[in-house]
Amino acid sequence: MSETYFDTVCVVGTGLLGGSLALALKASQLCGRVVGVDLDDERLDEAKALSIIDASADAPVRADLVIVAVPGPAIAEVVAAVSDSSRLIVDVGSVKAPIVDALARSAEGVPPHFVPCHPMAGSEKSGPAAASATLFTGQTVILTPSASTSAEATATVRSIWESAGAAVREMSPDQHDAAVAVTSHLPHLLAFAFAGLVEPEHLPVTGPGFRDFTRIARSDPEVWQHILSFNRDHLLDMADNYLAELTRARALLADGDDPEAFAQWLRERANRSLR
Amino acid sequence: MSETYFDTVCVVGTGLLGGSLALALKASQLCGRVVGVDLDDERLDEAKALSIIDASADAPVRADLVIVAVPGPAIAEVVAAVSDSSRLIVDVGSVKAPIVDALARSAEGVPPHFVPCHPMAGSEKSGPAAASATLFTGQTVILTPSASTSAEATATVRSIWESAGAAVREMSPDQHDAAVAVTSHLPHLLAFAFAGLVEPEHLPVTGPGFRDFTRIARSDPEVWQHILSFNRDHLLDMADNYLAELTRARALLADGDDPEAFAQWLRERANRSLR
Repeated sequence: MSETYFDTVCVVGTGLLGGSLALALKASQLCGRVVGVDLDDERLDEAKALSIIDASADAPVRADLVIVAVPGPAIAEVVAAVSDSSRLIVDVGSVKAPIVDALARSAEGVPPHFVPCHPMAGSEKSGPAAASATLFTGQTVILTPSASTSAEATATVRSIWESAGAAVREMSPDQHDAAVAVTSHLPHLLAFAFAGLVEPEHLPVTGPGFRDFTRIARSDPEVWQHILSFNRDHLLDMADNYLAELTRARALLADGDDPEAFAQWLRERANRSLR
Repeated sequence: MSETYFDTVCVVGTGLLGGSLALALKASQLCGRVVGVDLDDERLDEAKALSIIDASADAPVRADLVIVAVPGPAIAEVVAAVSDSSRLIVDVGSVKAPIVDALARSAEGVPPHFVPCHPMAGSEKSGPAAASATLFTGQTVILTPSASTSAEATATVRSIWESAGAAVREMSPDQHDAAVAVTSHLPHLLAFAFAGLVEPEHLPVTGPGFRDFTRIARSDPEVWQHILSFNRDHLLDMADNYLAELTRARALLADGDDPEAFAQWLRERANRSLR
């Protein structure tokens, strides 16, 4: 276990995901001291009060492991900034190709000890108070190493996530971004759009399906504005595909003379394996 | 309790909802013998094997309570057929105005002892095997009495559902249908359309939000073809509103020069009360 023990861990961004990974490392006794960095002083105080971090700093400190848990567009910059003062770097952003591409375009390239990660363990809650050592238990974490990522770094990061109870998979950054555009980003966009139609007088008439459908529309809009915009190109493609699907469904529903065509449309979709 | 005890209950349609109401009545000792009627002999045998019904019949028998649990378009006809041989009639259809309107147009009018009901307790499962005495516990049941429904019948039906653990609300058939078009029927249409976009290679990259979103797309397509088509006019209106919402969201997302407008759109929707 000595290769996956980190004397000093630096968490940049002490929200739900960064905080939960720090707590998971502590729970597995895989780390010594955890130093938090956050632009938001209140969040930093809260993370300290909750023992997510042991100390705070104004800027990233020299560390064995840096957890970059800032909004997507800021990740590449932080990774580049901590590259020389760290042994291993992970991020937890939900869009991967723009990060790897930005680093690849920089003079230093993609640091070999940076392993891009996406833990698929969101919640409609956010902030340090929502962080939990068991957030990743039973969830999937995607690693998207680039061509320059070292195999050793990837193996170590895999073992960190497995210690936190997650199932780890690897794919390319672009494959990942195309897939999450469908499975995560489009559902969020659809749920936010749905929330716009609901009026107070509808609320007494809701069942379990409604609650499922609207839970993700209670997600933090600032967080999701960053995520959705960061995966804009893939998401716009998927939104267009979806608008076409729904327009077709509307036309089939409107055509009362051919109920079988609408039934067929529903059957084809109900019988797809979505687990 | 004597006024809400039913010596003979006839369940027409022995699926999830009819079966569950029969089981709930038995569990509360509110009924004697339960006779099942179903076009599907296998389902009838299954309901008998599961003790949901005590006997089966080829056609509705004289009964103190008839539970009409057939697909929406067939409900009015069954209600009219059992009107003279029953003391009290309920249905469990998820669209109400077309039923009440069809009966109102008939020579006999809406029977005063028929109380239209919509238990908001669906499940992606169906059939007698999914029926449960506790399906309605903690769920909402909407009653939509018409002008000719007797107040006594409505009060008795209210007490039946309350015995099954449900919270009961009353509203007009049309108010009900407009509300469920938003809260139940549109989410189903949206979820089926979403299922059409998911490919096998996306499935490793799914989190909790995806499971929430796709659960209802595993609903029985035949059942939902009936329900969605039965509430066609309200649902088409809502689908048009939704297409407009989503088209607007897509335009805001595409406009990378004005991220604040997209952020504002998300914020307005995230902060709506949807509980």
